[in-house]
Amino acid sequence: MQKLTDYQYIFSEFLEGYIYDRKPSNLYDPVNYILKLGGKRLRPLLTLMVTEAFEGDVHEALNAALSIEVFHNFSLVHDDIMDAAPLRRGMPTVHHKWDVNTGILSGDAMLIMAYQLFENYEPKTFQALAKLFSKTAIEVCEGQQYDMDFEQRDDVQDDDYLKMIEYKTAVLVGASLQMGAIVSGADDENQKHIYNFGKNLGIAFQLQDDYLDAFGDPETFGKQLGGDIIENKKTYLYIKALESSDAMQQQELSNLYNEDYQVENEDKIKRVKAIFKATGAAEKTQEAIKAFTSKAFDILESISITDSSKSILKDFGIWLMNRRV
Amino acid sequence: MQKLTDYQYIFSEFLEGYIYDRKPSNLYDPVNYILKLGGKRLRPLLTLMVTEAFEGDVHEALNAALSIEVFHNFSLVHDDIMDAAPLRRGMPTVHHKWDVNTGILSGDAMLIMAYQLFENYEPKTFQALAKLFSKTAIEVCEGQQYDMDFEQRDDVQDDDYLKMIEYKTAVLVGASLQMGAIVSGADDENQKHIYNFGKNLGIAFQLQDDYLDAFGDPETFGKQLGGDIIENKKTYLYIKALESSDAMQQQELSNLYNEDYQVENEDKIKRVKAIFKATGAAEKTQEAIKAFTSKAFDILESISITDSSKSILKDFGIWLMNRRV
Repeated sequence: MQKLTDYQYIFSEFLEGYIYDRKPSNLYDPVNYILKLGGKRLRPLLTLMVTEAFEGDVHEALNAALSIEVFHNFSLVHDDIMDAAPLRRGMPTVHHKWDVNTGILSGDAMLIMAYQLFENYEPKTFQALAKLFSKTAIEVCEGQQYDMDFEQRDDVQDDDYLKMIEYKTAVLVGASLQMGAIVSGADDENQKHIYNFGKNLGIAFQLQDDYLDAFGDPETFGKQLGGDIIENKKTYLYIKALESSDAMQQQELSNLYNEDYQVENEDKIKRVKAIFKATGAAEKTQEAIKAFTSKAFDILESISITDSSKSILKDFGIWLMNRRV
Repeated sequence: MQKLTDYQYIFSEFLEGYIYDRKPSNLYDPVNYILKLGGKRLRPLLTLMVTEAFEGDVHEALNAALSIEVFHNFSLVHDDIMDAAPLRRGMPTVHHKWDVNTGILSGDAMLIMAYQLFENYEPKTFQALAKLFSKTAIEVCEGQQYDMDFEQRDDVQDDDYLKMIEYKTAVLVGASLQMGAIVSGADDENQKHIYNFGKNLGIAFQLQDDYLDAFGDPETFGKQLGGDIIENKKTYLYIKALESSDAMQQQELSNLYNEDYQVENEDKIKRVKAIFKATGAAEKTQEAIKAFTSKAFDILESISITDSSKSILKDFGIWLMNRRV
């Protein structure tokens, strides 16, 4: 099996070849812009790793891997419009650099282009890939809708939240892995397992993201610490804290998350974090992260690939969960 | 071959079954809303007609026909956002009834749902339908981009304009027809011909739309007459008029299409129409409509279907081109 950096090199070469001038430029320049912005390219990497784990040809998986990356970037372009986000990876978002109409239309084109990347596979593989892609893509839309709905709701439970992050984030990780299995001709059972390995790892990954936002190391955490708290985001930590808080803590949380409440960001973060600890929400979140990670690793054991492939995928999972950025 | 009203009945029954409550409702209610708004359903009708012309099973073509209709409505939802249109078929547009974010996300879901409608076809048919769909969908995006680009340009030629309406409108008519041929197992040659029949008819149809906007019968024309003129739209009439105008006519047109120029709508329409006539633009547009219609009918002759099927398709084309609404 190749090294991660090898996959990264192969994928970035392939991506380079995909980025070229197309007309009308007002439609395709934003597509090239967002694809060139970078990012970790974790999802396509996963597709390639799994392809090799199932003894498939990594080069045959490149179109599927790229489709996942193009779709991921499509969702960033449209989500950034919906979130009115000015920056993405430190650079202006598409709708900020151009305008909202450009963001909508270029995003639409990317969604179609993602499907087109399956066209060179033979019909059965094409259908399997496109079906998985559609199922995943529609779940990502549903996840985004739940996320927007939750902003208006005060009764979100932990299960609702887990379903939201499963759809918004985790299913695409699962699909990235399963596509590698499809391209390599793995059977349905193994496809299901590798998908579920990825899905559980994806949920753990997102919960970790929530946890680190509050309790990460400011030295190594990439984004601003406490960003979710400042934006009153109802993360897993918040939901768990509300669930286990006494009347006073509940009142304090509700005050702090009220937009009209006057409080300095630094003070707010400090007080919210204290409640996250006192209510046991911090600990419960860590337990949930461990539970989903363990579940992912258990599923990994049942997959018909060599032990060496398993440990490479497991090491990747451990690396992912130990990251502090 | 069945009557048009039979196809309409079969299709609307099928569509009814597709519209049901799905969660999250903020994502799917707008989908159901726009699908229920009506419209002529001409595109799916064409799919069914061609299926029967190639001796296929109309019921097997229903998913493909519905996919075309779902895609068409997706494009209306996103186009209405881009055009800031408050009304569609006399009712509030999706982004007006809900909001822009809802319009974007529900539209995205519809684009994916359109692909999912091919999933029940066997792999080869699935791939053929999805490939044609993607090619068409990306051209529709390009056409919409050209249309938006033209608003900022003063040098649009008739060929540019014809390419724009071909992509924005006509290719989807061609694809609607070709899908019927694919489902019926027609060969590549016949698929190509039926596509080109539809594409040329679609261009004629759009030119007719431009023509009727200026010279239609106010008694029977559905929309406000002169709407394109009021909005300074660079239609085929306008481009042809500019092309053949003398210096004075050119100055007059350029004044009338200047946003800062003070003129009553009624007076503006009257003066613009006079130039369209005097420059021969009206006549040239009618000639172009005839040329594309004749081309469509010539192509129809070369298709391997019965003479009776040909005349049904031809009658449909004649009916379409004689409509005054």
